[in-house]
Amino acid sequence: MFRSILIANRGEVAVRILRTCREMGIRAVVAYSTADRDSLAVRLADDAVCVGPPQAGRSYLSIPSLLYGAARTKAEAVHPGFGFLAEESEFATACRDAGLAFIGPAPEHLTLMGDKQAARAAMRKAGLPVLPGSPDPLTGEDDAAAQAEKIGYPVVLKALAGGGGRGIVPVHDPADLAEAFEAARSTALALFHDERVYVEKFVRDGRHIEVQVIADSHGNVIHLGERDCSVQRRHQKIIEESPAPDLPDDVRHALWEAAVTGARAIGLRNVGTFEFLVDGDRNAHFIEMNARLQVEHPVTEARTGIDIVETMIREAAGEPLALDQRDVRLDGHAIEARVNAEDPDRDWAGSAGDVGYLALPGGPGIRVDTYLVPDAVVPPHYDSLLAKIIAWAPTRDRAIRRLDRALGEFRCDGLTTNTAFLRRVLADPAFRSGTHRLGLIESLREPPGV
Amino acid sequence: MFRSILIANRGEVAVRILRTCREMGIRAVVAYSTADRDSLAVRLADDAVCVGPPQAGRSYLSIPSLLYGAARTKAEAVHPGFGFLAEESEFATACRDAGLAFIGPAPEHLTLMGDKQAARAAMRKAGLPVLPGSPDPLTGEDDAAAQAEKIGYPVVLKALAGGGGRGIVPVHDPADLAEAFEAARSTALALFHDERVYVEKFVRDGRHIEVQVIADSHGNVIHLGERDCSVQRRHQKIIEESPAPDLPDDVRHALWEAAVTGARAIGLRNVGTFEFLVDGDRNAHFIEMNARLQVEHPVTEARTGIDIVETMIREAAGEPLALDQRDVRLDGHAIEARVNAEDPDRDWAGSAGDVGYLALPGGPGIRVDTYLVPDAVVPPHYDSLLAKIIAWAPTRDRAIRRLDRALGEFRCDGLTTNTAFLRRVLADPAFRSGTHRLGLIESLREPPGV
Repeated sequence: MFRSILIANRGEVAVRILRTCREMGIRAVVAYSTADRDSLAVRLADDAVCVGPPQAGRSYLSIPSLLYGAARTKAEAVHPGFGFLAEESEFATACRDAGLAFIGPAPEHLTLMGDKQAARAAMRKAGLPVLPGSPDPLTGEDDAAAQAEKIGYPVVLKALAGGGGRGIVPVHDPADLAEAFEAARSTALALFHDERVYVEKFVRDGRHIEVQVIADSHGNVIHLGERDCSVQRRHQKIIEESPAPDLPDDVRHALWEAAVTGARAIGLRNVGTFEFLVDGDRNAHFIEMNARLQVEHPVTEARTGIDIVETMIREAAGEPLALDQRDVRLDGHAIEARVNAEDPDRDWAGSAGDVGYLALPGGPGIRVDTYLVPDAVVPPHYDSLLAKIIAWAPTRDRAIRRLDRALGEFRCDGLTTNTAFLRRVLADPAFRSGTHRLGLIESLREPPGV
Repeated sequence: MFRSILIANRGEVAVRILRTCREMGIRAVVAYSTADRDSLAVRLADDAVCVGPPQAGRSYLSIPSLLYGAARTKAEAVHPGFGFLAEESEFATACRDAGLAFIGPAPEHLTLMGDKQAARAAMRKAGLPVLPGSPDPLTGEDDAAAQAEKIGYPVVLKALAGGGGRGIVPVHDPADLAEAFEAARSTALALFHDERVYVEKFVRDGRHIEVQVIADSHGNVIHLGERDCSVQRRHQKIIEESPAPDLPDDVRHALWEAAVTGARAIGLRNVGTFEFLVDGDRNAHFIEMNARLQVEHPVTEARTGIDIVETMIREAAGEPLALDQRDVRLDGHAIEARVNAEDPDRDWAGSAGDVGYLALPGGPGIRVDTYLVPDAVVPPHYDSLLAKIIAWAPTRDRAIRRLDRALGEFRCDGLTTNTAFLRRVLADPAFRSGTHRLGLIESLREPPGV
């Protein structure tokens, strides 16, 4: 086992990874930008190394800086967390070349899954149902129009290199296609430095359901059940739960099976999340696979009792999976809410600065993953995720009530947060009944009477 | 179901009960003394009522004040928590007479179990193994000497009305008996307003193992497994875990069976904890039954997923138990540490005042039950319990590491706490191997080289 791990990330996920390192007796080294010098991760770390200024491009996204940090602290492995370089095969390769274990899937899997269209082709070949879409990157407006016509409107334009719900442009009317295509291209270029986009069927009233897979380099692949992540704002998840409500068991089992089949087909190791869109007729369509730790992984940990970060570390150290599919219990119901520093009433505008007065929830069935402490400062340079609150209970109804109770206990007076909005979602009748679809948030945000 | 419940307690247990009320949609009313006016329980409550000045005798121990509080807030039921009036049959009866449901066992069970010797007689009659002891209260020094001789030294003198580990005097040498007897009597009088004491066999190297029972008024009784509470300082538990380590399964099952038998024998309803002393030969001896919620109940909740406070509330409302013995899963390992405001190096001297800087632990498998928030003030009038940190993991080793990790994250700069001491216990080889006995803390506190 590694003696030390460099955590090449920040915020709550850096703390999350550090906790598992500590429990495993592994020295946790935190790489930080100057903006995070006093962060909780740095305070709790066994060792910490500054890797650059606040701009992510010069710290958390800088491969040389992170390699320097690892060398300087004599780290033996690197955990990239999620976001930043987690899915960059170049980083994984650079770590390997520097003699460091990269805690995640192999570089070839990052490359394959980073190209959404190659991923779709691979999964189609493996026999998974894949959403109808263009077989190649769109060559221009005319190609886009032709492909969209073939698929049938509504469609959605997506960046080939996209992920995390960013760079997605829905098109409902052929008249809007040209403009949407230009918008999608420029967004893709800005966000991912790759202007290639493709077109896919847009599923109205769909649900986002994903399956967590863990695998090792000895050919073992198991799934840890599914998560329903249909509550999204701007294509980004804010509430995730498991099991998916209102889903027939045959569909659920077919999704589990599809994910394991897909992982086996590409020889995946470490972790992966297979994302599906389930339409109104309960047909499932593969959309993408995330070859990294997922933000919402605690939902699965709460139901299975498995520490997914530990699983990743052990796999990266060459250990075979410690458990078999039949050892996995999927118990009760778990639900997570992402507490973001953002204002739902001002188009999700972000907030930063002193956290001020802070009270975190607790008690039965509540897990809190956060980097907030009373005198913390949230720097303006990074994403808005402040805390994840995860509730477990024997039933969905109780898990929702528990999460609502916990959100009511959360106080962070210095920042504008979305907690009140999250509670509105939890109180929504469609959500309560489990029949909500991807459009839920938009419907909630319509002004009263409209 | 009740529309509202008066919580006749304070501190972390008031918050604990309030959380379940909230999740059940029941209005939570907190009774508070003026010292707790700004407490977290009061802040989170749906309603709150001042029941008197800081002195417990004039607030939390004052039956008229609490009944006034219930009447004024139109509460329909009372949850007494633990400590204070939780085991006072007079209070339970007064509640009933005032038309309030008392959330706990029936008054006759509180009376029976409050008299340690009557309880022992009842359990002996039910066929439980009971520790050898005097059949009646000791009439004087001569009686004490005669009974002690008959039982055989070492013995222990205990208050009939005792509980919570208070009023216990061990005697190793007949020459010390007279003085010990006087000490036990005066302590009993001071603590419990009842000077009656009895004598019992003192078990050297014993272990404290207790079984949680839940029951209803329809004759259903089930157990929720055992807890090992052998880590005690001054006869008070500070670390509790489940399952009990280093215990053969036949003894474990016999304890479960004995507790259910004992509960059935007296027609117990609501909750009870049957406490046993297990000696070096792994013979179990009943010592007492606590007819109330136990401080360490979260250990059992973590393994079973059952909300014990909810079970109590539903029973008090007349509902039958919602589950059968075979529905109870006892999963993984759970361990709790009590973070107290006390100084282990100054004879456990208490601490009070502003909590100052506060950071609570979190992450996978960690539950925190506390009434601390950043600007809280811990009043000097009550017990020293600040927080309970509960760790769950698939194995004992990992649960201990997880708890240690969480204790390392806990910071409360304004108060002297026992967290460093708790971590010393967790690191102790005897504790790690699960072979520790009741004397563990004393052995840890001996100066090096002695």
